[in-house]
Amino acid sequence: MVTIDAASERVRVRRGAQRARYDSQVVHSILDAGLVAHVGVTTADGPIVLPMAYGHDGERLYLHGAVGNALLGQGDGAEVCATVTSVDALVIARSPFHDSMNYRSVVVRGRAERLDEPTAKVAALRLVADHVVANWATGRGPTDEELRRTLVLALPLTEASAKVRTGGPGDEPSDLVGPHWGGTVSLVTTFGQPEPAEDLAVGIEPPTAIAALAGRRR
Amino acid sequence: MVTIDAASERVRVRRGAQRARYDSQVVHSILDAGLVAHVGVTTADGPIVLPMAYGHDGERLYLHGAVGNALLGQGDGAEVCATVTSVDALVIARSPFHDSMNYRSVVVRGRAERLDEPTAKVAALRLVADHVVANWATGRGPTDEELRRTLVLALPLTEASAKVRTGGPGDEPSDLVGPHWGGTVSLVTTFGQPEPAEDLAVGIEPPTAIAALAGRRR
Repeated sequence: MVTIDAASERVRVRRGAQRARYDSQVVHSILDAGLVAHVGVTTADGPIVLPMAYGHDGERLYLHGAVGNALLGQGDGAEVCATVTSVDALVIARSPFHDSMNYRSVVVRGRAERLDEPTAKVAALRLVADHVVANWATGRGPTDEELRRTLVLALPLTEASAKVRTGGPGDEPSDLVGPHWGGTVSLVTTFGQPEPAEDLAVGIEPPTAIAALAGRRR
Repeated sequence: MVTIDAASERVRVRRGAQRARYDSQVVHSILDAGLVAHVGVTTADGPIVLPMAYGHDGERLYLHGAVGNALLGQGDGAEVCATVTSVDALVIARSPFHDSMNYRSVVVRGRAERLDEPTAKVAALRLVADHVVANWATGRGPTDEELRRTLVLALPLTEASAKVRTGGPGDEPSDLVGPHWGGTVSLVTTFGQPEPAEDLAVGIEPPTAIAALAGRRR
């Protein structure tokens, strides 16, 4: 087994260190699978965490919002934490004290920086739009005015760690001979059929990539 | 329409205020539906956000971990933010710039306090264990030693806000006559069949509540 160390002390996994992963392939695959990032910033009122769409290119994670977005404004040039989690199963132990979940998560910490250059902004917005399903190229591109109204932050992936739990419950040896059940119950997320917008003009079909989502697991 | 104001300025929803909800019934139903809370605390190294199991009783949200858990230790007596999000659909706009998601989220901000009294700790641990599926009463209860090794934090729900997005894309009027598709793709999370632990003794069946999860939507 190849041991890869944490990129920095502050992203080293402290609890359940045997579940820690620092190789970028694992980090990227978990980011690829996630739907939203929970983004934390520090404010004068304490920490705040909000769910946000995101994209990444293997080097940086991208977030976007309106220019007046308070959380992104707070994160611009400041320390930010973005956490992406997918839950795969409930883990039911003989002793509910040892209940757990199987999950994959990535924690990214670092200083976020605002992208101002229009080409870089467009590239980042495309990564966010295409993150779950590619739909940028089949839609209408952004106007200069829309770009001006948008704040895009980039967070380097240099300080990222992953944590992956798989398998059954970790019960006490003495509980294995008891009468209680232990095991897992998987959680599967599936895409439904594309539903056209109420105001969609007659005769417009969903692009292939979107139509292909129906019934697919996320 | 009854307008209910935010409990405090710092949990007032700033962006998309028309999607804000402050009534406790909505907040509780979103907490009931969630799987994990993304919990943020402030450290000397900046904010950190980690996914955690949780429970609630309508008054407080409960988190637990080992006594040495760094995040919970940091949160003990300090300002904490716990955010719970369920994603219901991708929202694909004619202009991917307006892509969105349908989701339900709750943000709770406040000072977390450690529970030391054993009865209160057990009650909180039971709420966490029973949050997704009731399994506390059908398992082996905690020992005094296990309780001593566990840190339980309570976060008041007095400062909580919810945000709910439903419906189709919010495209520009000029895009409604264009050639591009717009609509939604739902995301449904379903429980699988309970899988016994590899070391489960022969003849032990899952409790009714766990067996009943199979095929059920979360």
